[in-house]
Amino acid sequence: MRENIVVQHIARADAETIAGLAECGVATIHESQGRVGLLAHYMRPIQMDKCIAGSALTISGAAGDNWMMHVAVEQAQAGDILVFAPTSPSNHGFFGDLLATSAQSRGVQGLIIDGGVRDTRDLRQMDFPVWSKTVFSEGTIKETLGSVNVSIVCADALVHAGDVIVADDDGVVVVRRENAIQVLVLARARMVIEEEKRVRMANGELGLDIYNMRPRLKEKGLKYV
Amino acid sequence: MRENIVVQHIARADAETIAGLAECGVATIHESQGRVGLLAHYMRPIQMDKCIAGSALTISGAAGDNWMMHVAVEQAQAGDILVFAPTSPSNHGFFGDLLATSAQSRGVQGLIIDGGVRDTRDLRQMDFPVWSKTVFSEGTIKETLGSVNVSIVCADALVHAGDVIVADDDGVVVVRRENAIQVLVLARARMVIEEEKRVRMANGELGLDIYNMRPRLKEKGLKYV
Amino acid sequence: MRENIVVQHIARADAETIAGLAECGVATIHESQGRVGLLAHYMRPIQMDKCIAGSALTISGAAGDNWMMHVAVEQAQAGDILVFAPTSPSNHGFFGDLLATSAQSRGVQGLIIDGGVRDTRDLRQMDFPVWSKTVFSEGTIKETLGSVNVSIVCADALVHAGDVIVADDDGVVVVRRENAIQVLVLARARMVIEEEKRVRMANGELGLDIYNMRPRLKEKGLKYV
Amino acid sequence: MRENIVVQHIARADAETIAGLAECGVATIHESQGRVGLLAHYMRPIQMDKCIAGSALTISGAAGDNWMMHVAVEQAQAGDILVFAPTSPSNHGFFGDLLATSAQSRGVQGLIIDGGVRDTRDLRQMDFPVWSKTVFSEGTIKETLGSVNVSIVCADALVHAGDVIVADDDGVVVVRRENAIQVLVLARARMVIEEEKRVRMANGELGLDIYNMRPRLKEKGLKYV
Amino acid sequence: MRENIVVQHIARADAETIAGLAECGVATIHESQGRVGLLAHYMRPIQMDKCIAGSALTISGAAGDNWMMHVAVEQAQAGDILVFAPTSPSNHGFFGDLLATSAQSRGVQGLIIDGGVRDTRDLRQMDFPVWSKTVFSEGTIKETLGSVNVSIVCADALVHAGDVIVADDDGVVVVRRENAIQVLVLARARMVIEEEKRVRMANGELGLDIYNMRPRLKEKGLKYV
Amino acid sequence: MRENIVVQHIARADAETIAGLAECGVATIHESQGRVGLLAHYMRPIQMDKCIAGSALTISGAAGDNWMMHVAVEQAQAGDILVFAPTSPSNHGFFGDLLATSAQSRGVQGLIIDGGVRDTRDLRQMDFPVWSKTVFSEGTIKETLGSVNVSIVCADALVHAGDVIVADDDGVVVVRRENAIQVLVLARARMVIEEEKRVRMANGELGLDIYNMRPRLKEKGLKYV
Repeated sequence: MRENIVVQHIARADAETIAGLAECGVATIHESQGRVGLLAHYMRPIQMDKCIAGSALTISGAAGDNWMMHVAVEQAQAGDILVFAPTSPSNHGFFGDLLATSAQSRGVQGLIIDGGVRDTRDLRQMDFPVWSKTVFSEGTIKETLGSVNVSIVCADALVHAGDVIVADDDGVVVVRRENAIQVLVLARARMVIEEEKRVRMANGELGLDIYNMRPRLKEKGLKYV
Repeated sequence: MRENIVVQHIARADAETIAGLAECGVATIHESQGRVGLLAHYMRPIQMDKCIAGSALTISGAAGDNWMMHVAVEQAQAGDILVFAPTSPSNHGFFGDLLATSAQSRGVQGLIIDGGVRDTRDLRQMDFPVWSKTVFSEGTIKETLGSVNVSIVCADALVHAGDVIVADDDGVVVVRRENAIQVLVLARARMVIEEEKRVRMANGELGLDIYNMRPRLKEKGLKYV
Repeated sequence: MRENIVVQHIARADAETIAGLAECGVATIHESQGRVGLLAHYMRPIQMDKCIAGSALTISGAAGDNWMMHVAVEQAQAGDILVFAPTSPSNHGFFGDLLATSAQSRGVQGLIIDGGVRDTRDLRQMDFPVWSKTVFSEGTIKETLGSVNVSIVCADALVHAGDVIVADDDGVVVVRRENAIQVLVLARARMVIEEEKRVRMANGELGLDIYNMRPRLKEKGLKYV
Repeated sequence: MRENIVVQHIARADAETIAGLAECGVATIHESQGRVGLLAHYMRPIQMDKCIAGSALTISGAAGDNWMMHVAVEQAQAGDILVFAPTSPSNHGFFGDLLATSAQSRGVQGLIIDGGVRDTRDLRQMDFPVWSKTVFSEGTIKETLGSVNVSIVCADALVHAGDVIVADDDGVVVVRRENAIQVLVLARARMVIEEEKRVRMANGELGLDIYNMRPRLKEKGLKYV
Repeated sequence: MRENIVVQHIARADAETIAGLAECGVATIHESQGRVGLLAHYMRPIQMDKCIAGSALTISGAAGDNWMMHVAVEQAQAGDILVFAPTSPSNHGFFGDLLATSAQSRGVQGLIIDGGVRDTRDLRQMDFPVWSKTVFSEGTIKETLGSVNVSIVCADALVHAGDVIVADDDGVVVVRRENAIQVLVLARARMVIEEEKRVRMANGELGLDIYNMRPRLKEKGLKYV
Repeated sequence: MRENIVVQHIARADAETIAGLAECGVATIHESQGRVGLLAHYMRPIQMDKCIAGSALTISGAAGDNWMMHVAVEQAQAGDILVFAPTSPSNHGFFGDLLATSAQSRGVQGLIIDGGVRDTRDLRQMDFPVWSKTVFSEGTIKETLGSVNVSIVCADALVHAGDVIVADDDGVVVVRRENAIQVLVLARARMVIEEEKRVRMANGELGLDIYNMRPRLKEKGLKYV
């Protein structure tokens, strides 16, 4: 029932939409699409102050086995983001500077991995951003087949090939490809509203007043003493 | 039995004492007050090489609910530090750049939160320091009342409103308001002694001799082979 | 059956070999010696972009007790790395700027500790690198004897006094002293090969072809769809 | 983009197939379907020596909110198993003896929950089996909508409404509804083969010989000393 | 500032109230007092199907040091429950069959410990119930003073000496001594209401109707498809 | 440098000593040998109220690979205990009822594994006790060589082949083979003394008096108020 396949042709969101999403950041996008799509909180960046967006090139592989990474790189298009989920939890260092060199030469932007990564200093120097569960040098083997560009569960989130991944210092969020334009519109609208609020707040106006919270707080029984 | 209240007037330590404590750092203060008051080791800064001290403006709220944050900001005085504890464990991103803007406009120095925070890049750019259990974008709701300026348990430590919070790269410590001056005196004395030892150690003198440990090691039976 | 001893004379690898290993990095060395010797993935640096190698000066002490640290410093030679393992798990801050000053004055390069460390900002300013399980200010006592330069289990790895420790952003690896030269030879050979592959990959050649993976993938049944 | 829906009519596997799967147990089914479908290892039973199988009635709800549980019970058919996943991690006690009474009266067999459960003693006495991430009394609210009988990610596994859930002391596995018959056939075949091996092993024959492992061990270089 | 004291005379709730609370169980009491007072979810019983209630005899001690346990036993009255919190996290086995024998001879009912316990088989045979963070044999020392019958933070909860502790399979809850009678009244009322609902639910009536949830679900936009 | 070997002849402690140690239990043995040798606190039994002792038949294997288990069984002698440590952390279910049948037919008493186990209900029914890090059904492969009867680090403890393993409800401890007789003597002496104390304590005598703690408590400054 389990077949190992490589899907060679996947649909991707258009580049402009993706670029737009990269400007919004993870928290804004998460809000704009109804608070869904976040990867687990343990997914942390190996670098600081970086935000990327790109199409998910999904990879399913065995724990401690990075064979499918090599298969995946061949399927990459410029701007893709590798998204790797092991079929069972693993802290192995699935990915290092060599694979990053290969991926980068194909235009891959970065890596999201529910596992370990190594050569992190080199990856930072190469400007190849990574979000991972852990950093660990433990090597992997190449024994068990997996699949490329199938739907995967990565760090609690369901990711389809071609979905848009956005990642920054706050974590990682997935946007369904078919929703990407709509999410971008909503996220931009949200940013406008937030900017307006930011100005008011910077001037000392309180959230209590901007959001008109006082009546409801009173109704619920909050007492000032 | 559980009432949700906002205490509007709290006593604070004087500004000079607080400023003095900020110069001592967490480890020295922890030692000087008898090794009490540390928040749990999982409380980590989102920035590096920053040490702050201020009066605790305490906030108790429900898991995944940041309503009371807005209530708290109104109670802030210049130099205060927000200290938030959810009533049950939560990794939600309770606090982001908008709330930080509002808090900063009221003079709040920073945030201590036994939960998640988001917009971390923005917070660093704003120079609004945060110590948190996690970094996560997951949004919160505004449904359940909590309290402001009551005593809370935050990351294993009991914090009363108006206590002095000191936070640096090593973590977070709470100093009882009524002990603040005495702790400062002891911490400064300790720093003088430590500086003296540092000079001796930098010159190659051993802790074994400075602390006269050799007789007791021998008595306990340590063997050199 | 348990004796507390300080072994005063231990064999060390030669300085040139050690310096060579520092240039290879943890991942390469781990691979070159047959994927053994890694310390647990939770051992994280308090600084970035630093790689050191040195002879292990091993320390076994009780949880929450740093007495043996002082004993150990006297045994240090220039270039040594302190390797501390508590006899049961502990997050205490066993080591801070004073001990670092003392150790550094004796030529100690850095610290590997399966426990906590404090004064991390000072340690970074002193350029005294540390890899630890946690950062925490909790102070320690000096009540229970331990041993220096005995074999210890540190973060899942067996370390003998005089073994070579290599630590970088990816973690920590131990090389048996008697294997150090051979590992260095293999690691350098590996680096040459990897550099060659890096060039090919940077030019767009795929791992699938460089490693001749296609026939085996086909044989195992991977389907391209 | 996020709609909250209750799907009222879902396909289920036939009762005989489900009953057959319950006799095979989690490990055998996991193997028979190609080692996929396991829920995370932290999903533990509150009772011992119990194995159930049933159709998944899936529930997606907010962290700390069990409103959708009540909605779900109305959709239950005899033999169903409730499968609940919060949209972000939560240890709240989402489910207790009252909901269990209600569910049991509708023929629900048990609960799989990536969160907390309470009243565990009562649940055992009612013979209502539960597999959960934790046991905790913390109460929940009823404020945020979710969905029933949509596809969910529960404890790392993707579960569609109507998939077959099998749970025993070893954990929980999901079988795609459309594969259930085939998996049952394979699982039964596997049990026959395993029984045969068990007899041989009980008689002292070694796995080394039964599986003809010796030549490959030799070829790979295992040395007997 | 930190004084080590033993408070010899504390107020306790009356025996009848305590006995009443034991019949209600943790989840009901937690609800009845407004969802406060739960100890952390990691506090697990070493036995099954046991519920106790008693007055908290609080103990604060150093990590890995059980000296104050002996001091505390002398202060015990029949029916008391020992509540131990180390001043920093510790998995040591602070308590075993000898201390249990001593405590039991003084009428102590059981132990709540945010740390480890050992001799668990003996404790079960003695019918001395324990709720702990872990089970571990690691021995403790008797070097550092602590306090008895002071207010402590135990597993995230603030506990005053003389508060009522209730513990069952779901965990542990603390009831303020001065609220005990009122909580009991509310808990009993709640049990009556719950029993009524249980009967209705057992008869197939749905929570959706009993709680009149349908209008609000509709208003919030839940769609049945 | 890393050779995969099977050591076929190892020394074992004599059966009488081992049987004696089984009667002492883990906590007593841990104390009697100077508080060393405990495996990590996360090693938990899958059964209750069972204590075994036997010679360690050590196994080192790759994460998620149980090939060496089969190799090890051939080396077993009656009374041996399998002790398995993966070379990197793994929760896979390395061992189930088939391997247990094979091992039991060779006289193996039980299993200690720093990883996962499955078929736990069957194992309990077979009376084959197991202490493991986790229970999980995830299957393993047979691809990578390891070693049998070499020294391993298992759950933080160094174990040599032929060392005596003692395991009960409190955890697991290793006794060096060459110390086994001496540890047994000390453990028995300790049990006599503890029994004496138990009688005194059961009669209401306090630890404070039995251990003469009052003068030292007073000297250290404990205040009774």
